[in-house]
Amino acid sequence: MTPSNESELTQTVLQSLEGTHDARFLQVMQSLITHLHAFIRDVDLKPDEWMQGIEFLTAVGQTCTDKRQEFILLSDTLGASMMVVILDQLRAAAGKRGRAANEATEATELTEATHATVQGPFYWEGAPDLPLGADVAQGARGEPTFYSGRVTDTHGQPLEGALLDIWSGDGEGVYDMQVEGAAMQARGRIRTDHEGRYWFWSIRPSFYPIPVDGPVGHMLEAMGRHPNRPGHIHMMVSAPGHVPVTTHLFVAGSPYIESDAVFGVRPRLIVDFESHPPSRAPDGRPIEAPYWSAHYDFRLEPQHA
Amino acid sequence: MTPSNESELTQTVLQSLEGTHDARFLQVMQSLITHLHAFIRDVDLKPDEWMQGIEFLTAVGQTCTDKRQEFILLSDTLGASMMVVILDQLRAAAGKRGRAANEATEATELTEATHATVQGPFYWEGAPDLPLGADVAQGARGEPTFYSGRVTDTHGQPLEGALLDIWSGDGEGVYDMQVEGAAMQARGRIRTDHEGRYWFWSIRPSFYPIPVDGPVGHMLEAMGRHPNRPGHIHMMVSAPGHVPVTTHLFVAGSPYIESDAVFGVRPRLIVDFESHPPSRAPDGRPIEAPYWSAHYDFRLEPQHA
Repeated sequence: MTPSNESELTQTVLQSLEGTHDARFLQVMQSLITHLHAFIRDVDLKPDEWMQGIEFLTAVGQTCTDKRQEFILLSDTLGASMMVVILDQLRAAAGKRGRAANEATEATELTEATHATVQGPFYWEGAPDLPLGADVAQGARGEPTFYSGRVTDTHGQPLEGALLDIWSGDGEGVYDMQVEGAAMQARGRIRTDHEGRYWFWSIRPSFYPIPVDGPVGHMLEAMGRHPNRPGHIHMMVSAPGHVPVTTHLFVAGSPYIESDAVFGVRPRLIVDFESHPPSRAPDGRPIEAPYWSAHYDFRLEPQHA
Repeated sequence: MTPSNESELTQTVLQSLEGTHDARFLQVMQSLITHLHAFIRDVDLKPDEWMQGIEFLTAVGQTCTDKRQEFILLSDTLGASMMVVILDQLRAAAGKRGRAANEATEATELTEATHATVQGPFYWEGAPDLPLGADVAQGARGEPTFYSGRVTDTHGQPLEGALLDIWSGDGEGVYDMQVEGAAMQARGRIRTDHEGRYWFWSIRPSFYPIPVDGPVGHMLEAMGRHPNRPGHIHMMVSAPGHVPVTTHLFVAGSPYIESDAVFGVRPRLIVDFESHPPSRAPDGRPIEAPYWSAHYDFRLEPQHA
């Protein structure tokens, strides 16, 4: 079939996929082509605009190195990464029952498990296993903060030995990985006690900008958007037989909490950081400077058979 | 606003564009984000599939050099380039009257002007000006072909001095630009006579594959698609006061005429190449080998004020 107009063209391109063996790849590409063509028609994209798009995507690809992934940054800043995160958690909640059949109960399920958010580019495998109550900061600059809470399943049953894999930037928004040759800081793995409780020290994380010296930075500028993420600490929380969750705790009141450049903030992940004068901390430790405390209970979805 | 589910996420991302100054950029990005999110939701895109997409796009960008544009190849093989070409010609036909108001008459308008198709990567500016009847082949391998016809406006009025900027590969599907250090071949600029007529010699072009050694080649393979374009000769036809058209003439019966890898074939651009025994050619020249002839009349849309 040879197309004589734009509707026939879309049909012709879709028909060209008939030889695709992988059913899932076929489904993804059919949807992608349908939306790509619809986008071009909806905005009546002009040849010079198309060429600007080609040049932009090329520049994004050529900005990628083994230390920088500009396409992930693009996906993040367009909300695509966060959409994938949300859908992945919905799918886990729906389990084997199938998503369509479960539409009605989705909202309920999601209120039960801790909300997920983006992993981001600063996860560093091999953080040290630390005892309950340890100082995860490991020398990172920043105001000391006492973190505590519980890990339970979605029915409220405490999960003993659940793993919290924790990482954050320092009190000025800089991650250890961003400093050439730096050692690990503000990273650690902590396990809950027999009542599902955890507690540890670290710093109060600060907002920071994503890299803006590449094409994605120029895009944000053209959109009149700032490049900042509000202060947050990352956690990957897992326990055998449960769906792990990759998430952040966001500092309530942090600048940019209402306008995260990568759309990672979700209302249930915003945590009040309470300020304290120098005193005896909740774990009994005497603290000679002002400090903060943050409390958060994590809930994990049981894995469906 | 911070999103708690996937619908709110799309709204949040769209709201983040409120500071965009350029109204057209805003319109394009709103549509792009809406379709991007809808695509991800429609197929319920999984994190590992998202990552495959990121890696694919990165590889496409990194395959681009100053001599190769893999993103254009991707756009071509998904039919996006051809969609832009078709819309551009519809817009020119609709002129200043506005596209929406003109929907009803579009079909008629398009049958009048010669259909456009993709420019492709092998246009080389500065082809020689040649007299009517010249051999454009300039030594390119292939079976000799006599091309003739007229250039008129869409009312049938002949256009004197209309320019045909002509290029093609040779009879084996190879363009001069693809041979390191080669001189120009099978390229030339011809002008119509006072009755709008043109005639020239060149070769009968062959089908050929687009480059398949990059990520786009792997994508075509996964789709079970071949990478070939049917035989065609390129023309950019222009005349003062008229909308220029960039198009091809396709060789009727060429392999892949029904399945052009870049979807450039349109029914009205397929031309019968008539075979002739050695004889006196239509321009009076005695030809000692078998040859072909192809006849095509081009029509240009008058430019709207």
